Amino acid sequence: MPIEINATHDPARRSFVASANASDTDFPIQNLPFGVFDDGKGARGGVALGDAIIDLAAVLDAGLLDGAAAGVAAVASRPSLADLFMAPAGQVSQLRAALSDLYREESGRQDRAGAALLPAASATMLMPAKPPAFTDFCTSADHILRMARNGGRPPQPAWATLPVAYNGRASSVAVSGAPVIRPMGQVVPRGESTAVLAPEPMLDFEVEFGAWLRGPANPLGETVPLDQAEDTLFGCCLVNDWSARGIQFYEMILGPHLGKSFLTTISPWVVTMEALAPFRVPARGRTGDEPALLPYLDHPGDRQAGGLNVELTAHLDTGNGPAQIVRTNVAELFWTLAQMVTHQASGGAPLENADLIATGTVSGAADEARACLVELTGLGKNPITLPDGATRVMLEDGDTLSIKGRALADSFVSIGFGECTGTIIPARTHV
Amino acid sequence: MPIEINATHDPARRSFVASANASDTDFPIQNLPFGVFDDGKGARGGVALGDAIIDLAAVLDAGLLDGAAAGVAAVASRPSLADLFMAPAGQVSQLRAALSDLYREESGRQDRAGAALLPAASATMLMPAKPPAFTDFCTSADHILRMARNGGRPPQPAWATLPVAYNGRASSVAVSGAPVIRPMGQVVPRGESTAVLAPEPMLDFEVEFGAWLRGPANPLGETVPLDQAEDTLFGCCLVNDWSARGIQFYEMILGPHLGKSFLTTISPWVVTMEALAPFRVPARGRTGDEPALLPYLDHPGDRQAGGLNVELTAHLDTGNGPAQIVRTNVAELFWTLAQMVTHQASGGAPLENADLIATGTVSGAADEARACLVELTGLGKNPITLPDGATRVMLEDGDTLSIKGRALADSFVSIGFGECTGTIIPARTHV
Repeated sequence: MPIEINATHDPARRSFVASANASDTDFPIQNLPFGVFDDGKGARGGVALGDAIIDLAAVLDAGLLDGAAAGVAAVASRPSLADLFMAPAGQVSQLRAALSDLYREESGRQDRAGAALLPAASATMLMPAKPPAFTDFCTSADHILRMARNGGRPPQPAWATLPVAYNGRASSVAVSGAPVIRPMGQVVPRGESTAVLAPEPMLDFEVEFGAWLRGPANPLGETVPLDQAEDTLFGCCLVNDWSARGIQFYEMILGPHLGKSFLTTISPWVVTMEALAPFRVPARGRTGDEPALLPYLDHPGDRQAGGLNVELTAHLDTGNGPAQIVRTNVAELFWTLAQMVTHQASGGAPLENADLIATGTVSGAADEARACLVELTGLGKNPITLPDGATRVMLEDGDTLSIKGRALADSFVSIGFGECTGTIIPARTHV
Repeated sequence: MPIEINATHDPARRSFVASANASDTDFPIQNLPFGVFDDGKGARGGVALGDAIIDLAAVLDAGLLDGAAAGVAAVASRPSLADLFMAPAGQVSQLRAALSDLYREESGRQDRAGAALLPAASATMLMPAKPPAFTDFCTSADHILRMARNGGRPPQPAWATLPVAYNGRASSVAVSGAPVIRPMGQVVPRGESTAVLAPEPMLDFEVEFGAWLRGPANPLGETVPLDQAEDTLFGCCLVNDWSARGIQFYEMILGPHLGKSFLTTISPWVVTMEALAPFRVPARGRTGDEPALLPYLDHPGDRQAGGLNVELTAHLDTGNGPAQIVRTNVAELFWTLAQMVTHQASGGAPLENADLIATGTVSGAADEARACLVELTGLGKNPITLPDGATRVMLEDGDTLSIKGRALADSFVSIGFGECTGTIIPARTHV
């Protein structure tokens, strides 16, 4: 099911852009993710390479691409990647291969290709596309079981037979750096019984992983079989599903609404499924205690390579620099991205081009893999302590929370996802 | 807060289109709702009048409008009403006034204006616009309290202090007539404990009322105060939130997802808030047993006229003609449309132009005002019996369920909303 390994994955390949060869860069020449930037000359699409952005419009102007690669580069240079997501996968692959050749060491076109670069620091990253829909899943068994234990209740059985999800709010998805304005909302103050309108007292983060969908996948009433679900994935990003726990826990009669719709932060670069091919791992298997997969959620290809070895870390900066407070891995999820796609379409709801899906909190079994503060603090009972002695139950105004992701595989160059960060701003005083 | 009464509401005004003067028409000359139709010559916007559609492009071609009315008619003639929703309210009002003058009896332009009409029966109605978001609220106290009683549990207190809502699936909203394909999904068969994939066994309807929003209302992080919320309402429609109860009740950990995303049917005509002005009634007050309104959800204008006297009926046809099984009224809702808008924006989530909101099941206190089958049958315990002797616990394949709406006020001509109907089609056998 996943894309095959090709020359763009060659671990020996290096770029003439020196920063792309650093061992800790998110964007070696093996990555080449797509994004939309604005350097003051207008929003347009580009590709990350080390500390630089390849300006696709400039590459085209310089006549450095031809054929299908040039055609799809023109699409990818637009101020939204939505059309790129719909481009034939083979053509996107050709563009990445051409860029890989153009920007490698000894490409012979260093001068002209180099002239199409700009420093990433000189540009502002924008949303890759406006998602028609944002679906947030809840696919970590460890998260679900730990939350149930915290609540003193057994988990509802559906968690183990389907990837639980709710429709998120697409209009409140923003890229890394967007201010995290503490929302005002209805909460019940401790020791009281009546709701008041107040600044959210329990502001949390959730370390999540997301995927941009290639569509249109299915018209109304049709479905997406699991063996075709992988084809609907264009690429991945990091997601922080900021959560206002006081608002959420009070309002939840038909699921979360305002508690999870004031802001969702994503990393602006879209790391293609092609770039992620070396990092595929088997889907997390089912133990004997867990229900067997229903047939529509079971496929040999998905079992063998439905997972992704992507380490996710969260770093909290309360004023003295970032301290790592979470280390987890996408491979620990109970469901694969393909299963999420197939389940979501199984009732006939159309998946649309540029839809965004997220995995839900990517928690694992280990203590360090508790991927939100509600888990880390046992529902607030055990504050975390940072290296500088600061303690936190929930996020405070001025705190900065950043998520990082690294795809890992022996014999391949690790790739990353860029920035997914936000700083808490005090609540507005009005509604 | 609501729009003032003007000449377009004059109950003495009649149209030269005879069908528009029938006492039971949904579309007298006092209504003039906007919609998008296709008569085989391409999708475009029109206005309903009796059994006819005013083809706005033809009206413009005939030179029957000028000034602002002509400008906004050009916008309204497009194949999506999204731009119309953003037009200044005063200009939309001018267009409706001009059409009211043009199509009234003795307008003096009967020949040329009549030539711009086409029979509604000759056209297919399309979605008025593609909603960026669809939010489904749950704002009937009677529905919430009856559902809680059916479930043998107390209602969660949030129902009485905020308009409960979840994000629906905008991609599965379709206009009246769309086939209601019984969804396949995970359900737990009666007497068993494990979920299977099966055709939904408990297919239900919900009689709801909806509103199309005029936007953009608020950017990310900003809000919409209640005294401005009415300005974000462009017009209203009927909504049937088809519900797969087996899927829904099993999957609900973070609210409904696939149980309510296989199809939501709306009536295709958008009845403007201006046309609804004569039918405004006070918001349902709070009794002494219910919590007082929090200040952000309280405003004198909303208290005085936030409600709408719109009678909603549901009609079930199992093969022997439609039988009325529900009669309820939008005025019975616990929350107003303006309160839904303000609450939804209160955390800073952007409301966007052409967003669709729905009220949730519009149930009232009376037995006949139980507005879904779960309520009508007491969670399946008491089947309903139709005049032809047929009984139903839930909808069966081949059943047709239609919702009708009539805005009612003494001294004014009643207006309606058109068709909101769907017929149940057997489940597909594949996923």
